[in-house]
Parts: sequence; C-alpha cells; structure tokens
Amino acid sequence: MANELFGPLSGTDRVDGLLDDAAWIAALLEVELALSAVAAEQGAVSDDDADGVERAVAAVAGLDPHTLAAESVEGGNPVIPLVKRLRAAAARIQPGAERAVHPGATSQDVLDTALVLLTRRAGHRIVEDLRAGAEAAARLAAEHRDTPCAARTLGQQALPTTFGAVAASWCAGVDRAGARLAGLLDDLPVQYGGAAGTLAATHPHGPAVADALAARLGLAPQGTPWHTERTRIGELAGALGVAAGACAKPATDVVLLSATELGEVSEAAPGDSSSMPHKRNPAAAVTARGSARRAPGLVATLLASMEQEHQRAAGAWHAEWETLTTLLRVSAGAAARLRVCLAGLEVHPDAMTRNLALAAGAGTTSHPPGVGHAPDLVDRVLAGRPW
Amino acid sequence: MANELFGPLSGTDRVDGLLDDAAWIAALLEVELALSAVAAEQGAVSDDDADGVERAVAAVAGLDPHTLAAESVEGGNPVIPLVKRLRAAAARIQPGAERAVHPGATSQDVLDTALVLLTRRAGHRIVEDLRAGAEAAARLAAEHRDTPCAARTLGQQALPTTFGAVAASWCAGVDRAGARLAGLLDDLPVQYGGAAGTLAATHPHGPAVADALAARLGLAPQGTPWHTERTRIGELAGALGVAAGACAKPATDVVLLSATELGEVSEAAPGDSSSMPHKRNPAAAVTARGSARRAPGLVATLLASMEQEHQRAAGAWHAEWETLTTLLRVSAGAAARLRVCLAGLEVHPDAMTRNLALAAGAGTTSHPPGVGHAPDLVDRVLAGRPW
Amino acid sequence: MANELFGPLSGTDRVDGLLDDAAWIAALLEVELALSAVAAEQGAVSDDDADGVERAVAAVAGLDPHTLAAESVEGGNPVIPLVKRLRAAAARIQPGAERAVHPGATSQDVLDTALVLLTRRAGHRIVEDLRAGAEAAARLAAEHRDTPCAARTLGQQALPTTFGAVAASWCAGVDRAGARLAGLLDDLPVQYGGAAGTLAATHPHGPAVADALAARLGLAPQGTPWHTERTRIGELAGALGVAAGACAKPATDVVLLSATELGEVSEAAPGDSSSMPHKRNPAAAVTARGSARRAPGLVATLLASMEQEHQRAAGAWHAEWETLTTLLRVSAGAAARLRVCLAGLEVHPDAMTRNLALAAGAGTTSHPPGVGHAPDLVDRVLAGRPW
Amino acid sequence: MANELFGPLSGTDRVDGLLDDAAWIAALLEVELALSAVAAEQGAVSDDDADGVERAVAAVAGLDPHTLAAESVEGGNPVIPLVKRLRAAAARIQPGAERAVHPGATSQDVLDTALVLLTRRAGHRIVEDLRAGAEAAARLAAEHRDTPCAARTLGQQALPTTFGAVAASWCAGVDRAGARLAGLLDDLPVQYGGAAGTLAATHPHGPAVADALAARLGLAPQGTPWHTERTRIGELAGALGVAAGACAKPATDVVLLSATELGEVSEAAPGDSSSMPHKRNPAAAVTARGSARRAPGLVATLLASMEQEHQRAAGAWHAEWETLTTLLRVSAGAAARLRVCLAGLEVHPDAMTRNLALAAGAGTTSHPPGVGHAPDLVDRVLAGRPW
Repeated sequence: MANELFGPLSGTDRVDGLLDDAAWIAALLEVELALSAVAAEQGAVSDDDADGVERAVAAVAGLDPHTLAAESVEGGNPVIPLVKRLRAAAARIQPGAERAVHPGATSQDVLDTALVLLTRRAGHRIVEDLRAGAEAAARLAAEHRDTPCAARTLGQQALPTTFGAVAASWCAGVDRAGARLAGLLDDLPVQYGGAAGTLAATHPHGPAVADALAARLGLAPQGTPWHTERTRIGELAGALGVAAGACAKPATDVVLLSATELGEVSEAAPGDSSSMPHKRNPAAAVTARGSARRAPGLVATLLASMEQEHQRAAGAWHAEWETLTTLLRVSAGAAARLRVCLAGLEVHPDAMTRNLALAAGAGTTSHPPGVGHAPDLVDRVLAGRPW
Repeated sequence: MANELFGPLSGTDRVDGLLDDAAWIAALLEVELALSAVAAEQGAVSDDDADGVERAVAAVAGLDPHTLAAESVEGGNPVIPLVKRLRAAAARIQPGAERAVHPGATSQDVLDTALVLLTRRAGHRIVEDLRAGAEAAARLAAEHRDTPCAARTLGQQALPTTFGAVAASWCAGVDRAGARLAGLLDDLPVQYGGAAGTLAATHPHGPAVADALAARLGLAPQGTPWHTERTRIGELAGALGVAAGACAKPATDVVLLSATELGEVSEAAPGDSSSMPHKRNPAAAVTARGSARRAPGLVATLLASMEQEHQRAAGAWHAEWETLTTLLRVSAGAAARLRVCLAGLEVHPDAMTRNLALAAGAGTTSHPPGVGHAPDLVDRVLAGRPW
Repeated sequence: MANELFGPLSGTDRVDGLLDDAAWIAALLEVELALSAVAAEQGAVSDDDADGVERAVAAVAGLDPHTLAAESVEGGNPVIPLVKRLRAAAARIQPGAERAVHPGATSQDVLDTALVLLTRRAGHRIVEDLRAGAEAAARLAAEHRDTPCAARTLGQQALPTTFGAVAASWCAGVDRAGARLAGLLDDLPVQYGGAAGTLAATHPHGPAVADALAARLGLAPQGTPWHTERTRIGELAGALGVAAGACAKPATDVVLLSATELGEVSEAAPGDSSSMPHKRNPAAAVTARGSARRAPGLVATLLASMEQEHQRAAGAWHAEWETLTTLLRVSAGAAARLRVCLAGLEVHPDAMTRNLALAAGAGTTSHPPGVGHAPDLVDRVLAGRPW
Repeated sequence: MANELFGPLSGTDRVDGLLDDAAWIAALLEVELALSAVAAEQGAVSDDDADGVERAVAAVAGLDPHTLAAESVEGGNPVIPLVKRLRAAAARIQPGAERAVHPGATSQDVLDTALVLLTRRAGHRIVEDLRAGAEAAARLAAEHRDTPCAARTLGQQALPTTFGAVAASWCAGVDRAGARLAGLLDDLPVQYGGAAGTLAATHPHGPAVADALAARLGLAPQGTPWHTERTRIGELAGALGVAAGACAKPATDVVLLSATELGEVSEAAPGDSSSMPHKRNPAAAVTARGSARRAPGLVATLLASMEQEHQRAAGAWHAEWETLTTLLRVSAGAAARLRVCLAGLEVHPDAMTRNLALAAGAGTTSHPPGVGHAPDLVDRVLAGRPW
C-alpha cells in the first residue's frame, strides 16, 4: 500500500491506472489467456480446452486484489494462487479445460510478461510526456532564439547567451532520453520458459509457443528465456533514470531562474503560500525535481538485482517488481510535471536584460562578445530532433 | 498509488495502516490540533478560538484523500489545502476561530511533524519485529549451542562451527540494528519554525510553543527548526538501511542452507510450486531478502536529498516523503518476513553431520580441530543482548 | 590517491594505464593540441601560432601530476593551470603563439573531451573482455549442450536442464551488455562550447571548429554543447552498470555451483587458503562479484549528477570525474575477472548427475520430463550472437 | 590505481596518507605484530617465537605494494601472501618463529582489523574538519546574529531572518554529524575469529587473545567475530553519508548566495577563470558539493553488501574495501573543502539589505514581521554544541 495523497502533486498519478492492482491482475490474466490461446494454435493443448480457459479468465477477472494478495504469501508470488483459481474456474465451467491453464509455464513467465506489458504502457505515456515537454522547450527555443540572457557558470554570470539556446539544450536532453526509452519499449520481450527454463512441458512446441505468445501480445520474441538474465531490466532502468535526469535539468534551471532576484521566468500557474501571498513558487518545476530525485536510487536497486542466481533468484527477482513500477511512477512524475512547467512558462526578456547589465555594470564585460553562435545552436537542435 | 497486491507476501503490509493516506491525514490533523491547543496554552491564540479549531478538526477529519490530493497540486503539498479547509470549517463553526488555525506555522512544520509521528509508529513496529526475529535466533542459538555444522567461506566448507554460533551471529546483528533504530525513534523531534524558520509569527511565544508542541505530541524538542538541516532524516535512513541489511544476512543463510543439496534447515511453512510438488521453497527468507534489497537505494536517495538549499528546498524535501515511507515499508517487510522465517525454522542436525563428512571424507580434515569456542560465543552473545 | 594494492585481484588494474594521472594529462594535452590545429585549419588562429602550440605541448608533456594537482585547487579544475602553463610555454618558445592556446574554449570543453577519450579507450578494453568472457561461455554452452544438470529455483532443485543452456544464458547476457556498450562508445561526442556554450570566441568559425575537432579526435560530432545536458553520461553509466550486472550473474552461479556440496564446476586456478589446504576457492568469480557489486551505487551517483544547473554545474559536474573513472574500473574488473573465471572453468558432469539424483531419489520426479528444449536454446543463443 | 590529480581540489587528499598502499601494508603488519605479541602474552605461542615475529615484521615492512598486489590475485586478498612472506622471514631470521605468525587468525581477521585502524585514523581527521567547519559557522552565526537577510523558500524570498540563524543551522547540522561519527569511531572493534569464526586454533585462549588484541590496538572488543555480521560497517557508512550531506547543505547555500545577482557572501579566495577575470567562483563550496555528492551511492553499496552469506562472503566483503576507503575520502573532501569555504567566508550585509528590499518593494511585505526569534535560535544552537 502506498499513497495517493502525493500522486497528483508529484505527477506520479499519471501512470497510476496503468500500474495499480487492477492493472496487474488484468495483465496477468491477459497473459494467461494469450498463452492458452497460442498453445492451442500450436497444438500443445486442445482448442476446446482453450475456449474453456477464456471463459474461466472472464470469471476470475473481478478478483479482489486483497484476496489474491493474502493467498500469495505462501508461495511468494501472486501467480501461484491466480493459476489455482483459474484452474478451478476452468474445471467448473468446462471440465477438463483446466488442462489448458498455464500450459508449460512457470509463475515467473506470467509475472515477467505482465510486468513487460505494464511497463510498455506506462512507458509510452512517459515518452508522450517527454515528447510534449521537449516540444514546449523547442517552442521556447524558437521564440527566444535571439533573446539575450546571461549564461551562468558555477552560479556566476559568465558571458551572454540567448534564452533560446538554454531552452534548446533542455529540448535536446529530453528528446534524447525520450527517443532512447521509446526504442527500448519496442524491444521488450515475452518471457516463456517453464519451470526449468527449458520449455520442457510444451515440448516439442515450446519455442513456437513462445514466439506465438510474443506475437499475440505485440512483444518482441525472447530468443531464450531470461528468468535470471536481466540485462533488459537493467537497460530499462538506465533509460528511465536518464529520462528522470533529463527532466531534472530544466526543472532545476526553472527553479533558479524564477528566484526573486533573477525573475527571468515564471510558471503559468505558480503555487501560492497561505501565509505569504507575494510568493510565486514554481511548483511544477519543484515537484518535477522532487520526482526526478527519486529515480537514481531505484535504478541502483534494479542494477544490483541483476545478480540473480541459478534459474530463478531467491529475492533479487522479488525486489524488482515494485522497484520497477515505482521507477516508472517517478519518471512519469518528472516528465508530467516538467511538461506542465514548460508548456506554460512565461519568459521575461526585460529581467534578462537587467540581469545582464549587472556584470556589465561591474565593468567586467567592457567588450561584450555577443551571443556568438547561440542562435545557430538553436537551429541545429531544432533541425535534429528525433521524432 | 502503489500496490497492495505485493504487500502481504513482501511483509510491507505490516506497516500499511500506519502509513496510508488515512494515517497521513489523521497525523496532519493531529499536529494542527495540538498546535492550536499549545498556542492557546502559551497565550499566542485565545482559548476560545482553539476550542473552535478542535471542532473544525473533527469536522474535517473524514476528508477524502483524493480530494485533498487534487487540491495539493497547485501549492505542491497537502498542508496548504488542508489548512484552507480547516480555516473555512473553523470560521463556519465558530466565527473567528480561524485565527487559531495553523498559528505561526508553515506547511513544512506540519508535514515534517506528521512524518515524524508516522515514522515513530511504523518504526516501533519494525523494532518489535526485529526484536522478535532476534529472539527467535537467540532460541536457535541456545538450542543448537553445541550442534556441529560446517562453517563455509567463499562457498566452500572451511572448518566446523556450531549452528548455535551461526544463529548467535544472526541474533547479534538484528539486535544491534534494532537497538539503534529504537534509540533514534526516541530522538525524533518536532518541527516548528514558521515561514522563515524564525518563529516570527508567534513571537514572543515561539520557542515556548515549539517546546510545548513537542511535549504534547511526545516528541523530542527541536532545538532549532530543521527545515533544511536534515541530519536526523539521514541518520534515520541509515538506521533503517542497516536494519534491512541485518535481516538480509540470516535470510540469505536460510536460503542457502535450505538448498536441496545442503538441506540443513527448512522453513516451517515452505512455499510450494504449482508444477513441482517436491519443492520446498524458503518463501519467507526469499521475500525477506527481496524487501531488504530495496532499502539501500532508498537510503541513497534520502542522503542525496540532504542537499537542501536556503530555508526550504525546491524538490529535495519533496523527494523525502514517499522515499522515507517506502523505506519504512521495505525495512518492515524484511523484519516481518525474517521473523516468520526464523520463528519456525526447522534445523536438521543429521544433514549438518552428513555435510561435514564430505570435506572430512576428502581427507582434508584428518585432524578436525573441533568447534573451538563456538559454544562460548553463543553464551557471549546471549549474555550481551541489548533489550 | 587510491590503492594499487587491490587492483590486480579485483581486475580493476586492467584499465589503470588508461585512466591514471599520466593518461589524464596526456589526454588533456591531446585535446589542446588538436584544438589549436583545427582552429588553424578553420582560420580561427594562425598556422604559425598553432605550430608554436604544438611545440609548447611537447614542452609541457612531462608535467608532474602533483604540481598540476596543487595548482588546480584555486580554480577547481586542472585545465585552468594547464592552460596557464601551456600559454607560458608557447610565449617562451614562440612569442605570440600563446594566442593559439585553448582557442575559444572553456575548461570543461577540454576536460569533458579528455574524459570522453579516456572512457572510449577503457571502454574498448571492457568490451574486449566482455566479448572474450561471452566467447568462453559460448564454448561451454556448445560443449555441454546436452549435459544434464539440475535447474535450481529459489535455491531448490527444480527440473533438469543442460549445463549448456545455463552457459548459453550467461553468454546471452554478457553479449548483450557488451554490444550495447560498444555502440555507446562509438557515439561519444566532442565537447566544445566556450565560456557560455555559444562558441562565441571563435565566431564565426565555432561550429566548424567543433566538428573538425571531433573528426580529428575520431569522436562523434556534438550537435550542440552538452556542458549541462548529461544524457550521454547517464546512458554510459547505465550501460556500464548493466555490463557489471551481466558479469555478476555467471560469477554468482560459479560461486554457488563450486560449493563443496554441489561441486559441479571448479575454476582452473582456484585460490588456496594458508590454513586450509583442502579449500578450492573460486577466487576469480568471487572477485568478479566483488567488483560488480561496486557498480550500481556509482551509476546512481552519475544519474543524480544529471541535475546540472545553468550553463556549468557547481558540484554535480565535479562529482562525475572520479565516479565515472571508478565505474569504468569496477566494470573492467568484473569483466576481466569473469573472463579468467570462465576461460578455464572445469565442468564436472558426474557431479551434475549425482546431484540430479538427489531430487529424483526423493521420489519427486518420478516422470522426469527431460531437458526439454535446453539444447535448442543453446543453438538459438549461439546463432544469434551480436559480434 | 586512481588519481592524485583531483585530490587537492576535491579535498580527498586530506586523508590520502592515511589510506594509501603504504598505510594499508603498515596497518596489516601492525595487526600481525600485535597479534603475535598478545598470543604470547596469553600463552598461545612462545615469547621467543613472538620476538622473532617482531623482527620478521620489521624485515617485511618495506614491501613493494605492486609485488604484494600481484601475489594477492590467486587467493583474492593481500593477507595470504603477506603471511607467507612473514612466515618465510620469521623462519629465516629465527627458525621456529614462523609458528607465532598469524596465530589462530584468518585473512579476514587481519584485513578487517587493519581496515578499522585506517578508518579510525581517517575518521578522526574528518571529525576534526567537521568540527572546524562547524566552528567557523558558529563564528559567523555569532557575528551575524542580528544581521537581517531574506529567508528563501522554493527559491523565492519568504520573510526576513538573520544571517546568523542561517549559519547557526549550518553549525547544528555539521556538529551533529561530527559528534555521531566521533562516537562511532570510538566503538569500532577488533576482528578475530579464525578460519571458521570459532577461535578454534587458539583454543582455549581464543577470547582472551581477541580481547587483548583489541586492548593493545586501542579498539573496542568484538564480543563475537563479525566476519559476515556487518551492522557496524553499515552504521559507519550511514554516519559518513550523513557527514557528507551535512557539508553539502551549507556548501549549496554558499554557492547560491554567491550568485552574481545575490552577492550576499563570497569566499575569501574565490577561483578565477582564465577567460573571464570578473568571475568570482566559490570554488571551495563547489568542490565540497562535488565531493559530498559522491557519498550516497557509496553508502548504498556498503549497505547492499551487508548481505553476506555463511561465514565469509564471496564478493560482498571484497566490495567493501575500496568502497569504504573511497567513502572516507569523499567525506573528508566535503569536510575539508567546507572548512576552507566557511573559515574565510565574507558576508555582505549591504547586499542582504538590498535584496530584502526587492520583495518589500513589490509591496508584499508592507508589514515586515521582523526577524522573529532568529537571534534566539542562534543563541540556542551556540549553547547546545556537542563538543
């Protein structure tokens, strides 16, 4: 159990409906249904039995998560009791159909494939928000291609740049992170190996069933089962961490540029303060940062969990489930809140000019070098977007 | 939103009722109520107004978390809309009483103090489970003080020890982690500083209100507000991470000693497998490890979030809330599942003897040195327990 | 200063010569030399002056790292004093040539580009070891395509597989991690933006100088400067973390399969123990794990450091340097030690048969399902290798 | 091998001489020498033999780290070859004295105890710098007890506080972290358990030897061997992480308050920029942050490495050595650089006044509430310092 209280403000609720208990159970059943169907296609079970499973799945669909959760304790994962219920329902609805439930599968086959389905759906929403956030940055970059502002290094004003170049850099980072994530999502495979990872129980149909299952679910084929070969989970973790980091950068800039003394940007709907009505908090940027900062530790957990022993890990696999879904949530939160932040960002060129004069007034930039290639760099970024 | 589906199996549900949305809202209101009351005691608001706040708190108590969550987006935390509602209720119930709502406080005062209350309650439950787990280890140590088994180093049999010494080492680690955590929980302070951390709005009663608030809530006094001075959060994170790690050690040993080829211990209620009835999975140990492995990354997030700027951080603070409560959950899960694992652990001295003979049979320990001081070490540990 | 004492045993010394102080200084000078040369080609400085810089670089090349380190304190990076020395040398050797030193560059341009050069070189060595480790796994997979052994799940024997299938899974993971890392190394870009990231000081030659510098150093073009847009560093961190994790998996299996009671594999040159001559420690696997376990935390640091403010970060950038090189070291260590472990791994089919009989003897696999598609999966993996 | 190039600028060189290869070898030999001596005292070896060991230690002391490093590969740790050399030297110098080398010990006894010695020495230096940094903050707090400046929340000006209150908060955090670390250092125990952790080889003198070894080295007694019971390492990691975080907070504030537009503080010796002479980079604060940001990931690695199996871990222990020493280095760097930053910090009350007027000028604080209890809070902090 975790908290909905912080979901909307942190943006993590953006993917809630895709990752909640109902979504999990639906995805587990979706995998079981698809598995029975393709096993029938490949001749591993009978068509009749598979039809019975379809009806059993429908019968089980409304299952209360608390019930399934309680039944999951003994075996250590929710697939074991779910299959037990599915078999019972199948036997009741159409005696014999229980033979076509969970054919040749092990719990991890179903749980991993369901996790892949959830990940792909939540991931696509993250990509959508990253893309929209980058689009907003691109618009700012185009509009302020030539608007001078101070470049700042180590907190100090350096030389002039343009705000367009600043925003173009935001765009480049978020675009890159989004494109990489999108590519990985397309590459997520099915999991199907059976108890020993040998596809023994559906022999000689095993590999054909695996490939058909992938095709039916719209997933990539697995090549070989990856029960304890977790490079793909590690890659996904890395890409989500990069996405969060790519959002943290512009969010941090917006917070700093919004400071009372700088005042160069402001959010469209800044947060207020009950006691201080003059405050204009950049709430979307703040919460984007807050969500983004939660990602790196979760990535580390997933990478550390790649150390999975034998043919099924005793703990490292179990550590993945909620870590990956929480990582999806916080990355989604960072992307969603950054999108809000940038979509309505108000830019104050007058403040930029005023601030630029501070360093100039100190006699330090008597020969201002101008903004150099800043506008050209905007053009480069906008011309090279990956979408 | 996160998942209840995995709560019971991972043990994280052990603290669910203490950390869920209802608990959060109740704690926030508990702080507001206490604050109004002590402000009246100290003369910062009127007793009459404070009485009105008490009735307003009762009126607001049933607030739907979704509503509050939605209202929290603009300001970036749930206290702002909660105070707004509380003020409205107070004004409606007893006009003027709204003056005694949230006296001299800033949102972070209330949220941090509520988080401390939640942490202390969940933390005490973790300590309870750690203590019970250590107790179970102590019983195993006493019972098997002289039961010979192989010490294993780098996966290889080394020389003999006793199973009691192994279990005593489990006990020592879990005890130590529990005692440290218990000590920290007692030291958790109130937070009360107002908008600028200067206690200005209740001047000249500020420090007295702060100390009275601590006393009323049973918390330690704050000394000075710690809005962005987060050493206590960092210490707490470290102690929870150590607790999880202390649980991971015996859980890992149980998994390994339960292996088919070793068979030296088995859980009382091992998990089954739908396809393989001969399997006896050490499910409690497995899930204890799974929960424990989630802790280090969360600790890192909290430590990294100590970098809080100015008088209220723009993101690092927000990253703490769910990270800390998730850390409480996974540490609780590790402790709860380890407790189950150890409380019913079955020990097989015959298997220990059989395995010891393997290395002896290889002619490598022709002069077995015996178990040395292993029994004495058991006595030392049992005599030195911190409780 | 760190320790050479642990380099050979942990395998981290594999990339020492590529990442040490001498390599750093050489790379910094290599970048300065190339920059002067391409600036001359593009007409931003004179050919004569650039010739003088070439001689100045040669004069500075032997610089003592301690001296440069001491001079780096004031400005916070070693490029500032290096450029000062280079300018002085240029002015001394060929008066006026100092105009062609560091043309249009900022410290971070040179340091980042040097870091990219070091990373690419160390990264290639890691890829080489990953590839060789995967090759060793592939040979084991081919040789033992049909050798039955127990699949183990949650530490318990499940059903039979073949050792070939186990080794093929090792191969698949290490191959995948190696191929991804190799791809990223080819994509590492030059950094060249000048003080404000606007290429102002070499205007109008800026972008041409940047692209020519990339070409001369064999790096990818930058598109736009990435001083605080660190998605590439984050991606690299992720890929190195995945590489380490991919090595941890087979190393963990080797440790477990080498256990006295299992004895299914043994390293070619196992470590001894001064006090226990019968021990045969799988020292290469152990130290591969040890190095791999250091990676996830370093990845988290690099991802957290993506939060870089303005046009040059005040700390997050500085945190990258040694974190990235340490991550390269530990990933190299994991790969190098795994390669040693697998290259000489001895497989004991008799022990595998003996262990398989344990579960069968328990009457639990009365109808052994055989090894299923395990051999086919070996063929699939070997046919699909990425190299 | 790592880099001295970045040591002085990052402050990590502050503990270099205490943690380098020579310090390691000296500490390993110090432990061996003490062990032989106390074993003689306790009657486990002869006095004559122990005298011979003393001479052998002197003979081995100059050992080249590279040689020992190369010899360490086979066994996976440097103690094995060191003991071999020590035995050979003892036998050569005084035949029979080799019997008193490494009496009853295992490699990990010596390596862990040496690591504890190194940690304590480096830790004391960190405590010294933390204390000096807090002292500097205390001086600033006292001096500016009543100097008004803007409190800032979420980057926005809130209400006034005093700079003294800001600095007092720095002092409180650094003091707290330093006092906790100092307490832990005093509690670090000896390690002595022998091959199986049973003290078998020195039976019946085992526990007496262990306690005498602790006393002689000035360490805490161990209670029971802690080869795989790593709560103390975890606690230490947490305390070092908190210390780094406590330094990051004021360092971040100094960076932000030094910004061109704020100008409220400046470092005594700010860094310059080769191309921009007007810049005044807060280089000490920047590099303090850079070092501090490296800590959380290292803490996570150490906490994750608490999962140590059986009686000696196959990898998790090995991961500790350089992670802990690097954590000591970066914590030392953060403390040392913060000390420099704060010791010479220049405060600009005029700028504080000017900035305060910005929000006031916006008509938003027409009734400025004053600085409230800010001066009182300074007094509280200064009166409650732990030293």
